Amino acid sequence: MPEQLLLQDAVDKVRSLLGKGKVAGYIPALACVDPNKIGIAVTTIDGQTIGAGDYLEPFSIQSISKVFSLTQALNLYTEEEIWSRVGKEPSGHSFNSLVQVELERGKPRNPFINAGALVIADLLQARLGAPKHHMLEVVRQLSQNTTLAFDKVVADSEYQFSARNASIAYLMKSFGNFNGDVNTVLKSYFHYCALRMNCADLSRAMFYLANRGKTLDGDSLVSPVQTRQLNALLATSGLYDGAGEFAYRVGMPGKSGVGGGIIAIIPGDMSICVWSPELDNNGNSLAGTALLEHLSQQLGRSIF
Amino acid sequence: MPEQLLLQDAVDKVRSLLGKGKVAGYIPALACVDPNKIGIAVTTIDGQTIGAGDYLEPFSIQSISKVFSLTQALNLYTEEEIWSRVGKEPSGHSFNSLVQVELERGKPRNPFINAGALVIADLLQARLGAPKHHMLEVVRQLSQNTTLAFDKVVADSEYQFSARNASIAYLMKSFGNFNGDVNTVLKSYFHYCALRMNCADLSRAMFYLANRGKTLDGDSLVSPVQTRQLNALLATSGLYDGAGEFAYRVGMPGKSGVGGGIIAIIPGDMSICVWSPELDNNGNSLAGTALLEHLSQQLGRSIF
Amino acid sequence: MPEQLLLQDAVDKVRSLLGKGKVAGYIPALACVDPNKIGIAVTTIDGQTIGAGDYLEPFSIQSISKVFSLTQALNLYTEEEIWSRVGKEPSGHSFNSLVQVELERGKPRNPFINAGALVIADLLQARLGAPKHHMLEVVRQLSQNTTLAFDKVVADSEYQFSARNASIAYLMKSFGNFNGDVNTVLKSYFHYCALRMNCADLSRAMFYLANRGKTLDGDSLVSPVQTRQLNALLATSGLYDGAGEFAYRVGMPGKSGVGGGIIAIIPGDMSICVWSPELDNNGNSLAGTALLEHLSQQLGRSIF
Amino acid sequence: MPEQLLLQDAVDKVRSLLGKGKVAGYIPALACVDPNKIGIAVTTIDGQTIGAGDYLEPFSIQSISKVFSLTQALNLYTEEEIWSRVGKEPSGHSFNSLVQVELERGKPRNPFINAGALVIADLLQARLGAPKHHMLEVVRQLSQNTTLAFDKVVADSEYQFSARNASIAYLMKSFGNFNGDVNTVLKSYFHYCALRMNCADLSRAMFYLANRGKTLDGDSLVSPVQTRQLNALLATSGLYDGAGEFAYRVGMPGKSGVGGGIIAIIPGDMSICVWSPELDNNGNSLAGTALLEHLSQQLGRSIF
Repeated sequence: MPEQLLLQDAVDKVRSLLGKGKVAGYIPALACVDPNKIGIAVTTIDGQTIGAGDYLEPFSIQSISKVFSLTQALNLYTEEEIWSRVGKEPSGHSFNSLVQVELERGKPRNPFINAGALVIADLLQARLGAPKHHMLEVVRQLSQNTTLAFDKVVADSEYQFSARNASIAYLMKSFGNFNGDVNTVLKSYFHYCALRMNCADLSRAMFYLANRGKTLDGDSLVSPVQTRQLNALLATSGLYDGAGEFAYRVGMPGKSGVGGGIIAIIPGDMSICVWSPELDNNGNSLAGTALLEHLSQQLGRSIF
Repeated sequence: MPEQLLLQDAVDKVRSLLGKGKVAGYIPALACVDPNKIGIAVTTIDGQTIGAGDYLEPFSIQSISKVFSLTQALNLYTEEEIWSRVGKEPSGHSFNSLVQVELERGKPRNPFINAGALVIADLLQARLGAPKHHMLEVVRQLSQNTTLAFDKVVADSEYQFSARNASIAYLMKSFGNFNGDVNTVLKSYFHYCALRMNCADLSRAMFYLANRGKTLDGDSLVSPVQTRQLNALLATSGLYDGAGEFAYRVGMPGKSGVGGGIIAIIPGDMSICVWSPELDNNGNSLAGTALLEHLSQQLGRSIF
Repeated sequence: MPEQLLLQDAVDKVRSLLGKGKVAGYIPALACVDPNKIGIAVTTIDGQTIGAGDYLEPFSIQSISKVFSLTQALNLYTEEEIWSRVGKEPSGHSFNSLVQVELERGKPRNPFINAGALVIADLLQARLGAPKHHMLEVVRQLSQNTTLAFDKVVADSEYQFSARNASIAYLMKSFGNFNGDVNTVLKSYFHYCALRMNCADLSRAMFYLANRGKTLDGDSLVSPVQTRQLNALLATSGLYDGAGEFAYRVGMPGKSGVGGGIIAIIPGDMSICVWSPELDNNGNSLAGTALLEHLSQQLGRSIF
Repeated sequence: MPEQLLLQDAVDKVRSLLGKGKVAGYIPALACVDPNKIGIAVTTIDGQTIGAGDYLEPFSIQSISKVFSLTQALNLYTEEEIWSRVGKEPSGHSFNSLVQVELERGKPRNPFINAGALVIADLLQARLGAPKHHMLEVVRQLSQNTTLAFDKVVADSEYQFSARNASIAYLMKSFGNFNGDVNTVLKSYFHYCALRMNCADLSRAMFYLANRGKTLDGDSLVSPVQTRQLNALLATSGLYDGAGEFAYRVGMPGKSGVGGGIIAIIPGDMSICVWSPELDNNGNSLAGTALLEHLSQQLGRSIF
C-alpha cells in the first residue's frame, strides 16, 4: 500500500473513536476547538513529509513545546546545570501535582511535567534576552515555516488561569529551585505552550530526534548522544502519567499536549505528529494514541 | 575489535567502580556475597553466547525473576485478566512502598514493583499445580541449563524477613486484589527470587525478548506483539525508581535485581546480562549499569 | 428539670436523626444491628448511674476498647516504653491508613488509630499470660458487671476480614515496631473490640477518667496525672479524623467505636456513654454525637 | 506561695532549658532575637495581670495572630461562610505543607495552619476596607495598650521570603478557594504576623477566651458558645503538629508562634502568655512549653 494511502487508511480506521474523549476545558480558548478533527503527518528520514486528515490545520501545541524548551536548554547549559535542578524519572503523579515536588524538596521529577518545564523555562529566561522571540525563531527554522506564531488569545487565557502553575513555581522558589520572576517566566512559558502549528509543521520540527540530532536543514541541533537521551526521556516521561500504556501500545518515544497533539519518533526512520482534540483520562489525545498504535502495527515498527 | 575482547575491555573499564556501591544487606544470605565480582554475557540473535569477567558464576537473580513470572502469566491468562489487576505505569515510588497501593485502592502500578509481582505470583499460584516446580522447568529450558536450582538458604532467609511483602499482600487482599493464601504465595515468590543463575544462563534465558518471542530452542514462548509489550514495560518500569536514568544512560529495556544482576535487551539483536553485587541508591547494580552504558556507547547501539 | 428527664428529653430531641447515617457494614455481624437504637447513660461523680433510651441494651464496643488497652499498658510499662513506640498526635488520616505509618517509618501517630492500637495490643501480649482473659476481668470489675463477655461471632467475623489490620501489623513489623506473632495479636485485638457492653456498663467503666483515676470501687487504676494525659489524648485523637469537629460541637474528651458507641468525659464531673449504630462519614455515631452536643448545651458544660 | 512568686519560681525552674532549642531562622529579622529571653504573664478572671521574667519585652507574635484573625472573621461572616472554606480538623502535617491542601482539593484542614490562616486573611480582606488598620485597632483595644504596632522590618522581611505562602495561596486559588489578589492578602497576613506585643499585652488580649467571650472592657467580642468553639479548635489544632503532645503535657487550649510566644487558656479562670524564642522540632517554644507544663502542675489546673 502506498504510504499516503496507509496514513489515510489509519485515519479512517480510528475515526470511530471521535466522541469518546473530552476536549481540554480548563481555559475557554481551548474548550471551543472542533472535537471532530483528526490528522497525521510523517516526515521520513529522507526529509519527505506526507499527511492525511486534518494534518494541515494548526492547533495549540501546548506541552509538546516542552521538547523545544529542553532542547534549547541543552544548547545553553551543561548537563550538570540542568540535571541538578530537574530529574529524569517518571513521576507517578498527575502532571500538575505539587505533592511530589514538596516531598522531594523542590526538584521536579522530569522536564515534561509542569514543574520540570517551569524550571527549564526559568533556565531559558536567565540566559536568553528574548526567550519568546528565540523560541519562535527556533521553531520556525525547525519546521521550515516562517509564518508560525503564538496564539495570543490562548497565551492570555492561560495566564488568567495560571494559579496552579504559579503555585508550583513559588513552591520551587521556596526551595531555592526557581530564580526568575514568577510572572515573567509564566508569561514566556504560556507563550511556548500557545504556539500554533499543524501536524506537518511538528513532524518536520521534530525531525532532528529521528535523525541523530540533525535538522531538515542539515544543522546539528544536538549531538547524537543527546538525541538518544532526549528520546529516552520522552519514552519514560513524555506522556504524563500514561507513559507505560503508551509504550505498551505504541512503542515509540513521544510527547503529548492537551491541545490534542502527540509527536512520536522512530529513531533513524521517521518523526510523526498526530492530532485529535479529545483527550483520555491521562490528558493524552484518545484518537491520536489509537492512530499511532494502528500505524505501529501496520508498519510493524516500534523501538521494541 | 573482536566481540570477546570488547566485552573484556568493557569489564576492565568499569572495574574501578567496585567499592562505590553497597551490597544488599536486608537478608544475611545476600549480604555475604563477594562485592568485587563483575561479569557480562551476551547472547546474539544467531544464538551464540559470549562473556567476560565473572560471567559463569551464579548469583541470586532476585527481581529479574519477575520477568519470568509475568511471561508465564501471559501464557495462562488473557490480557484483560492480568491488566485489570495490575497497571502498566511507572510508580514514582520505592519498589516496596505501600503508599501508592493504598491511594490507588489495591491495584499496583506495574508488575515489576513488589506489589505487582505479588499479584502475578498470586495469579500463577491459582492456575499452576506446582508453581515453583513449573518455574524451575521453564527457566532450565530457556537457559538450556538443566542444573539450575533455587537457593534454599536465600529463600528461607527471605521468608524470615518477609514482613514488608506480607504487609503489601494483605493490603491488596483487603482491597480484593489478592486471592491466595498469603504465606503460600510468599513462599513461591521468594523461591522465584532465590533462583541461582549466572550471566550466561540469564542472557540465554532472556533471548526470546530479543527474538520476537522465540526461545533458543525455536519455540514461540510469547507472540511478537507480546514481546514488544514486555520490552515496553521493562523500558518504563524495569529499573525500580531509576528507569528514567537507565533509559537515559543505557537506552535498553532492562530488569534489575538486588542480587546485582541486570538483564537488558536490544530487540532483534541481542540479550545481555551483567552482574556486580554493589547497588546504587535505587537498588540497581552500580558497576553493572556502568558496564551496560559503556557497551551501549561502544556498540553505538540503543533503542533510541 | 430532674436529670433523668433531661436525658430522656435529649434522646427525644435527636431521635429524628435516625436514618441519616449508615450502620458499619464491613463485617456481617455488625451490619445486622437494628439501626433505630439510641441510648445514653451518665455516671456522675458521686457514683450514680442514670440512663435513657436503649441504654441497657448491649452492643459491640469496638474501638472504645482502645481506651481499656492503653490504660492496661500504662499499668504494665513505663511512659518511655510506650511512647517510644506510638505517638501522641492526631493523624490527619483515616483510622486504617498505612500511608503515614510508612512515611513515619512504622511508628503510628497515636494509640487510638488501628496501627497504634495494634502496637498497644502487641505490648499487652508480651507481658500478659492471658491478655483476653485479663481484659475481661478488668472490664467486668470497672463496670461492676460480672456477666460481660466477648461476642465470639463478631470476633471471628473480624478475624475473617482482618487483611487490612494484618497489613498494618506486618508493616510495623517490617520497621521493627511489632514483636509478637501477628495472628495471635490480631485475635486478642479483635476480642477486645468484640466486647459487648451497654451504655450503663461503659459509663461506669470509664468513671475513672472523670474521677482522677479512681474507679467506682475506689481503686486507683491510674494516677491523676495519667488520667489528665489520657483525657488529653482522647480530646485530640479519640474521634478518628473527626476529633476537631467533636471538640467544636461537644467539647469533651471522647472515644468512639464503629459499633455506634461513644464515651465522653467531663473531668471531675461525669462519664457518659451514648449509643446509636448509624455512623457519619468519619465513622462516628451520627445521632450519638448530636446527643452529646445537645447534652453539652443543656448542661452548659464542656471542658472549654 | 503568692502568685507572683509562683510565676517567678516557674521561670527559674525552666531557665536551664535555654540553649536546647533553635531560634526561627527563616527570616533575618527573627533570627537575630536574643535566645535567652523567657517570660510569662497571667491575666486572671478578675482582670488582674501579673508576670515574671521578660514578660514586658515585646516580641513578634507571628502565628498567634491567627487567633485574632479568626475571631474577626467570626464577627464578619456566618459559620457556614467560614467553615465551608476551612475545616476544623488537625492536619497531621507540617504547618506549611501543600500535600494535604492538594489532596483535599484546596480546603485547608483548620484555620491555624498557614493555608487556613491565608483563607481567613482572604475573608478579612474581602469585607474590611483597611484590614491591617482594623487588626491594629482590635488588638490595641483588647490589650488596652494603644502603643502596639507592626514591626515593619519583620513584615517586609516575611514578604521577601514569601514564596512558600504564595505557593499555598495560589494552590487554593486554583481550586477556587482564594478570591483576593495574592500579594495584597499576603501583605496583610504578614503584617498580622509582625505585630509586636509582650506577654502582658497578649495575656490581656486573649482574656476573652477565658471569660466566655467578654473582653477586659466588658464587651462581648464573641458569644459564650463561640468562645467554647474557639478554645476547642485551639486545643486540637493550635500547636502545629504538636497539639497532642501539648495537650498531654500542658492540658490547655493554646496557640504558638515561631517568634517563641505561646498563649494558653484555662476557661473561666485565666489567660496566659509565655515567651522564649528557641523552638522545638514542631516549631513551638521549647522553654515556653515547659513553663506552661510546670505551671499546670503547680496550679494543679488543666482542662482535663
